[in-house]
Amino acid sequence: MSNPQNGAAALLNAAYATGIRVCFANPGTTELDLVRALDDVPGVRPILGLFEGVCTGAADGYARVSGLPALTLLHLGPGFANGLANLHNARRAHSPIVNIVGDHATWHLPFDAPLTSDIESLARPMCARVIRIDSASTIVQSVRDAVADALAPPGSVVTLIAPSDLMEKTVEDPPEVPPSSAQVRSRQAVPARRVQEAAARLLQSESTVILLGGDSLCERGQRAARRISESTGARLVMESYPPIVALGGDLPPLERLAYFPQDVIEQLKGAVVMLAGARAPVSYFGYTGQPSKLVADCQLVELSSPAEDGVHALETLAGVLPPAAGGSPARRSVSTQGQEASVSNLSPVAVAEELARQMPEDAIVSLEGSTCGGPYLQRAHRAARHRVMTNTGGAIGQGIPCAVGAAVAAPEARVICLQSDGSAQYTLQALWTLAREALDVTVIICANHRYGILQTELRRAGADTSRPALARLTCLDEPRLDWLALAQGYGVPCSRAATPAEFREALRIGLKSSGPYLIEAQLE
Amino acid sequence: MSNPQNGAAALLNAAYATGIRVCFANPGTTELDLVRALDDVPGVRPILGLFEGVCTGAADGYARVSGLPALTLLHLGPGFANGLANLHNARRAHSPIVNIVGDHATWHLPFDAPLTSDIESLARPMCARVIRIDSASTIVQSVRDAVADALAPPGSVVTLIAPSDLMEKTVEDPPEVPPSSAQVRSRQAVPARRVQEAAARLLQSESTVILLGGDSLCERGQRAARRISESTGARLVMESYPPIVALGGDLPPLERLAYFPQDVIEQLKGAVVMLAGARAPVSYFGYTGQPSKLVADCQLVELSSPAEDGVHALETLAGVLPPAAGGSPARRSVSTQGQEASVSNLSPVAVAEELARQMPEDAIVSLEGSTCGGPYLQRAHRAARHRVMTNTGGAIGQGIPCAVGAAVAAPEARVICLQSDGSAQYTLQALWTLAREALDVTVIICANHRYGILQTELRRAGADTSRPALARLTCLDEPRLDWLALAQGYGVPCSRAATPAEFREALRIGLKSSGPYLIEAQLE
Repeated sequence: MSNPQNGAAALLNAAYATGIRVCFANPGTTELDLVRALDDVPGVRPILGLFEGVCTGAADGYARVSGLPALTLLHLGPGFANGLANLHNARRAHSPIVNIVGDHATWHLPFDAPLTSDIESLARPMCARVIRIDSASTIVQSVRDAVADALAPPGSVVTLIAPSDLMEKTVEDPPEVPPSSAQVRSRQAVPARRVQEAAARLLQSESTVILLGGDSLCERGQRAARRISESTGARLVMESYPPIVALGGDLPPLERLAYFPQDVIEQLKGAVVMLAGARAPVSYFGYTGQPSKLVADCQLVELSSPAEDGVHALETLAGVLPPAAGGSPARRSVSTQGQEASVSNLSPVAVAEELARQMPEDAIVSLEGSTCGGPYLQRAHRAARHRVMTNTGGAIGQGIPCAVGAAVAAPEARVICLQSDGSAQYTLQALWTLAREALDVTVIICANHRYGILQTELRRAGADTSRPALARLTCLDEPRLDWLALAQGYGVPCSRAATPAEFREALRIGLKSSGPYLIEAQLE
Repeated sequence: MSNPQNGAAALLNAAYATGIRVCFANPGTTELDLVRALDDVPGVRPILGLFEGVCTGAADGYARVSGLPALTLLHLGPGFANGLANLHNARRAHSPIVNIVGDHATWHLPFDAPLTSDIESLARPMCARVIRIDSASTIVQSVRDAVADALAPPGSVVTLIAPSDLMEKTVEDPPEVPPSSAQVRSRQAVPARRVQEAAARLLQSESTVILLGGDSLCERGQRAARRISESTGARLVMESYPPIVALGGDLPPLERLAYFPQDVIEQLKGAVVMLAGARAPVSYFGYTGQPSKLVADCQLVELSSPAEDGVHALETLAGVLPPAAGGSPARRSVSTQGQEASVSNLSPVAVAEELARQMPEDAIVSLEGSTCGGPYLQRAHRAARHRVMTNTGGAIGQGIPCAVGAAVAAPEARVICLQSDGSAQYTLQALWTLAREALDVTVIICANHRYGILQTELRRAGADTSRPALARLTCLDEPRLDWLALAQGYGVPCSRAATPAEFREALRIGLKSSGPYLIEAQLE
């Protein structure tokens, strides 16, 4: 490892030493030394995306599922820009990601060649840190800093700009990197005093909501939360859009925080809200006459911030509370009665019911879009134990790429992508990566042929959605997208389901398939 | 027009008054008042793209073909980010574009809701100006400023951030906007002294190259340049990647500036290089041992900058030079002998030859990728008169969106998209907009199933492209993209051509089709 190598090899060796195992790449001419180094440095698997948003979304899914740092390799400012939307979501998910963005040779940069742009300005909104490598001798340290910053709790996105001439240069004596120096996130413990105060508040309060977010939504966190709930009657509510949450099996059913502000206010009315890894709820959008801050009338107690060790705090809290009185189940308001699935048409509820029924043990669901996602999350507690990733930042086009990354991180698991059709379009190129890498991902396209959320918002605002421009900008028919043809275009086997029976059968086939399978669920 | 209206309607009315006629949109919740206003303000046609890069690329094509300001409507930072790559190209093309980017309500912004991001930082690298509307009363002036700045020669991209609450507010007395206040670019005249000096240099010099760029590549510019060439023997060379260039028919055959630095240096060796609307050539990328500036050994003369009236300068210059001696054609080095098209396989040269042969009069070609683009530009002078748009900034995914915009701007023209397969993937969703708007666009996908330019660069650098990571990251097979299926998925009729005869027939059908048609040209 201390043999002379070029900057690109030194960079990848250093990345490997910090725990990097996969590189989601869409490289160009300025990254060619890094591409060549991928052949020289064993252990970092290159995975090609046909569009940069596929790479960044896959990195996000990989990081959420594995907890390991994820690497992308992207081409200059414009290529990197194509990856920003999914990095926005990754930032909100606190996913540890390092983007290597190639740049022109340092000496070529002043000449403003066609592909020159201000990469730092593009990166800053989505990144906790942007590092520009400025000499061959600092490459290794820059990589270590980037990965360390990405992994610092609660996790973040870091961009490392790699000028092409420095990647080409010989690094005479690259620092020794012990092969086992992979860094692990260690979260700061919650002070004991805060746990004691939380216990006191729980015992005093008539009505408490424990709002679980981030890492507190893992199994251990939820089991501790259930003991607290059983002891005190506190309701367990999960944040609206968790990065990854364990659900089903013997885990406690969780309410989900509502979307619209008045619903959240109603949901939390009169309660003490205890934050466990979640942020204090704010409205998703600003609506005239509605507040931004949705807990203005609640008492707020912070047990743990997203950066702290919320799981340990919940366990400690559970330990100091009196044991539950036998037979008193936690109060909860999860709706368990679904509408009966219609025999002829396929409704979002029917899709959600069937998916909950067939959910394989330890599956991972990448969920995007509210059409089927909302109904599914109401029923997920009745499924076998699994994990669900949601869209944390609202930038659409996350679902299929995130499923790619999850499947790479957990090859033993069945990955399911429950995906609205409108948002699927933003990064549909991810279907190709599923096929090429033969990933066991079942993609369910919930095809209602419209931007459903926009039509909902317009109707709430009293608009007539049949007016020409409104219809034109929110309907996705004329022509209808043919998802079967699109899947075939990318080499993904597929079928269409227009009734609950057809969907049941298609799902059965999809969940057994080796490699990807796509189901177009034709919603009525 | 002076009736009370909301901010969104005031914005669109002001945009209409400045010459805006089309809005390429992918809106979200924060843009809904603007979407509603599109129904209230007649004359601005909304066109939906399924991905933001489609909207910005279409705006670019529209602006290049029409010279009118183009409008996009995009959703917050992440949606806007998806449009940046094609805005990078638009910036390099000097296309007048105004992006309306919705943002959270001003009072909601401080709460850092999920979709909040630093839109200004994202916009700055691609935009000459970023304006944040800060009150309802300044909306109209902000629009005027944005369009005026976008149209200021040589043309640029401007972003207007529109907070949702200000779009909703009543604008009590919007300033009168005369319906005919559409602004027209007026370029500054080149000083007479510079034209005289240029004339003197041309008459002295043994060998002159007139490097034509930007607006000088319109018909008038080229006709004037030909007179200069006939009078002085100067060679006419066009910049490598012009925004839009007239070619064929009775226009002079133009050399094209080469791509690799040593080829450019060879091409310009010993010549006085006169810049007419073109920038002084720099290397596309920095290669060790090669210079960035490719005219270091040449004498440079600037006739006109990209912002100046180069056409008028060329005409004045032609007027002051002595008339051509009869029968002395301009020296030129255009290669007119193509390889003979193979009978069985379809080569890029065969595609280029056939396209030149069948080119309809006044067609517009959106060209992306060098596989067929290079051979085509060598033969374009033999075709009927047409115009060609090239990829000005190197951000790939421009071709099909730009064709969308061209077809909207020139509904009477046949638009042809000559498109490499790798780059087509970045914005293939544009196929849907072609189908929905029934645009007469013939898309030719040059399917060689690889990132050809990367393999070329790697071979030049001595790499073995059969090594696993190199092959994995530069080959697009395993599985091969099925462009017929993809076209069908978007409702675009299509066929595949694997021989010159099949391509000839497919092109004949494609060029006659009403609405879009896609040909997958299976290159050997």
